[in-house]
Amino acid sequence: MSDTPRRPGDNTQGNRLDPWFDAYAERAHNLRASEIRALFSVVSRPEVVSLAGGMPNLKDLPLPRLADTAHKLILDHGAQALQYGSGQGWEILRDQLVDVMTYDGITGADPDDIVVTTGSQQALDLMAELFIDAGDVVLAESPSYVGALGCFRARQADVVHVDLDEDGLVPESLEHTIRGLKAQGRAVKFLYTIPNFQNPAGVTLSEERRPIIADICLREHVLILEDNPYGLLGFDSDPLPALKSYSPEGVVYLGSVSKMFAPGMRIGWAFAPHAIRDKLILASEAAILSPTMFGQMFLSQYLADYDWYGQVKSFRSMYHERCEAMLGALAEYMPDCSWTTPSGGFYTWVRLPDGLDAKSMLPRAVKAQVAYVSGTAFYYDGRGADHMRLSFCFPSPEEIREGVRRLASVVNAEKDLVEMFGAGFVPLDGHHDGPATPSSSAH
Amino acid sequence: MSDTPRRPGDNTQGNRLDPWFDAYAERAHNLRASEIRALFSVVSRPEVVSLAGGMPNLKDLPLPRLADTAHKLILDHGAQALQYGSGQGWEILRDQLVDVMTYDGITGADPDDIVVTTGSQQALDLMAELFIDAGDVVLAESPSYVGALGCFRARQADVVHVDLDEDGLVPESLEHTIRGLKAQGRAVKFLYTIPNFQNPAGVTLSEERRPIIADICLREHVLILEDNPYGLLGFDSDPLPALKSYSPEGVVYLGSVSKMFAPGMRIGWAFAPHAIRDKLILASEAAILSPTMFGQMFLSQYLADYDWYGQVKSFRSMYHERCEAMLGALAEYMPDCSWTTPSGGFYTWVRLPDGLDAKSMLPRAVKAQVAYVSGTAFYYDGRGADHMRLSFCFPSPEEIREGVRRLASVVNAEKDLVEMFGAGFVPLDGHHDGPATPSSSAH
Repeated sequence: MSDTPRRPGDNTQGNRLDPWFDAYAERAHNLRASEIRALFSVVSRPEVVSLAGGMPNLKDLPLPRLADTAHKLILDHGAQALQYGSGQGWEILRDQLVDVMTYDGITGADPDDIVVTTGSQQALDLMAELFIDAGDVVLAESPSYVGALGCFRARQADVVHVDLDEDGLVPESLEHTIRGLKAQGRAVKFLYTIPNFQNPAGVTLSEERRPIIADICLREHVLILEDNPYGLLGFDSDPLPALKSYSPEGVVYLGSVSKMFAPGMRIGWAFAPHAIRDKLILASEAAILSPTMFGQMFLSQYLADYDWYGQVKSFRSMYHERCEAMLGALAEYMPDCSWTTPSGGFYTWVRLPDGLDAKSMLPRAVKAQVAYVSGTAFYYDGRGADHMRLSFCFPSPEEIREGVRRLASVVNAEKDLVEMFGAGFVPLDGHHDGPATPSSSAH
Repeated sequence: MSDTPRRPGDNTQGNRLDPWFDAYAERAHNLRASEIRALFSVVSRPEVVSLAGGMPNLKDLPLPRLADTAHKLILDHGAQALQYGSGQGWEILRDQLVDVMTYDGITGADPDDIVVTTGSQQALDLMAELFIDAGDVVLAESPSYVGALGCFRARQADVVHVDLDEDGLVPESLEHTIRGLKAQGRAVKFLYTIPNFQNPAGVTLSEERRPIIADICLREHVLILEDNPYGLLGFDSDPLPALKSYSPEGVVYLGSVSKMFAPGMRIGWAFAPHAIRDKLILASEAAILSPTMFGQMFLSQYLADYDWYGQVKSFRSMYHERCEAMLGALAEYMPDCSWTTPSGGFYTWVRLPDGLDAKSMLPRAVKAQVAYVSGTAFYYDGRGADHMRLSFCFPSPEEIREGVRRLASVVNAEKDLVEMFGAGFVPLDGHHDGPATPSSSAH
């Protein structure tokens, strides 16, 4: 995988093999395969325990009943469900999403300020499209979600990371960073943040810090893009109030049903200040015309007729059990590492012993039949090689224990080498006799 | 509806009411509501005959059987259908789309060069994203699809229209336009074309012209973006060979099931030269992560288990009958107009008598309970007021006749005024006592 994005005029292989290379927009040269995507081919092998993916575990969904719901939807309302809908999203679903957001402390939301999107990823992409000119600054946690960084990179943003600790985004670091950037005359377009069970760090913004973060951004006139896919998945508790609840005009809130229900219909939403919502609708219509009507109506039935919050609670215990399995295995097998202790969500963020490099270690881990994501994926600035993201959402508790055990053997072998020969020894990709490095192509 | 896109720094109302106005990217100021979108609130009134929309007519789909298919899909494969999929799209569906494209004369397509998208609109948007820098030229037919013009406008393209006649795009005009632009040093990024049953003009590129158009673009190194949503809906015949079949490396072909099956799952695809396909996948992952797995599997079942081409043939006769109803009514009620004679698709393009303005006439048509789209929507350069697009896809033949009858009364009244007072008389929006002009907001 190349670390340096290809620039126009580079005399690279792509240039010679692609007859249309000279025609791409400048921004297209900023696209590159994410480190997570490169793992797709690996994690599909049954013998590999993947602690890499962020796929929700759907095994507890009531499939027979959901099958009946889909049946009835097409039988009774097929001509509507299979038709185009409005670009903004179905009115009835938007009313229901207002209710969903009350769990995040957002009350009195106007359904007219909601835009339904193709997963919250599309809302992220539309926000990048609407706000980022080349060279603009976006603030993000340190580390931050790889899929958001990809959107920002595609618009040629300069992502500046703000410190994160066990209580989430650090207010002093945020304020200091904004002021420093402003002093340099830089345009800071927004702060991108995942307050709850952050991806990849697994930490949650404390209740005390929430109004402080909202205030800093309001005072400094920096819009907040609050991404909340995991919010309902706290192991022991309902969510803390969203930043949106503290600063209705200063926050664009992104919701998703991918983790609290299922991602297969691709439904997310943005809840935005009215003027931004206007532009989001126009941009979404240009991008997809309208979100899936079938998916929206199916979700609407699910929210109306099922005990969806009871299902969320059952997901919580399942993920809690898996998280416990992971933290227990880490304590047992990898005492030389340190990690965050999530109170919800899908991930823990593991710091490797000094001198180890998560990115160059990955091929050896895959050879040992375990996968993770190198911390480098979650930074815009090359940091992160001392960390890895481990996800506990998909494998069973037994698989998680076995995965961590395998990973520990790789880490220990690596540590031995570093102790014997120094950090510089660790061989680079391609200089070892393991299996091929996961390809950065889409195959 | 404003004709002039808002520019940064304009001291407009939006500036004062939107606290984030100063933060938008430059491209965001190019977004505006399409003239079609502005009609949505109007066409939903039951008393209005809408000849405006492009919604396919789904009444003949076998809903009970489709309901069973959805049921079985969730019951047997729910954990896969409700999960994330790959960014490129499901392999099994891509194999089937290769077969669908053989009807367009595309043989031996590699399914690995197909990217499944959220309707072909997303593929259009990704192509704009990948290729258009501000100020770049995109060539399009004269007139062209409003939704494509919106994508190009959002990337600050300069769309240059190329002549279209009853046999489609005029090769001499294409060559002349490209050479003229090149002589000015302009970057021509691609030709956007709808060869079959063009939207809005209803004309089809003749078989003779197809290799000529492909050759001109290859010789001039101009990529072709071939949009083919209506290709299978020729009234009397299978499709002519796609441009892609003449120039595999010079064409990105866009397919859609929205018109040959149904739009409600939002499934389209791009079939692209390999290097462009690489970038399309990356851009699509940044935009939506992955297309709907449920939608893809549902479509796959439909293509595998149903006589889908038989269904296409039944759609053909239905649309043919409606087209006949429209052309008959035009001949009977509007002899002073002229129009194209479609051999498939959804639309005819009607030229008004001299002096009439389709855009300013629209409120009076809506008052008379009939809707159409003003020709101005389909141009980037302000032309088109002498035309309107009439669609025959959705209303019944009886409704179509009644709609044209109502429209004729409006046209005739308008003509009387013009003959009495001259073209300058026709009052502008807001200077008459009819119902409010359809709002350009999303309500």
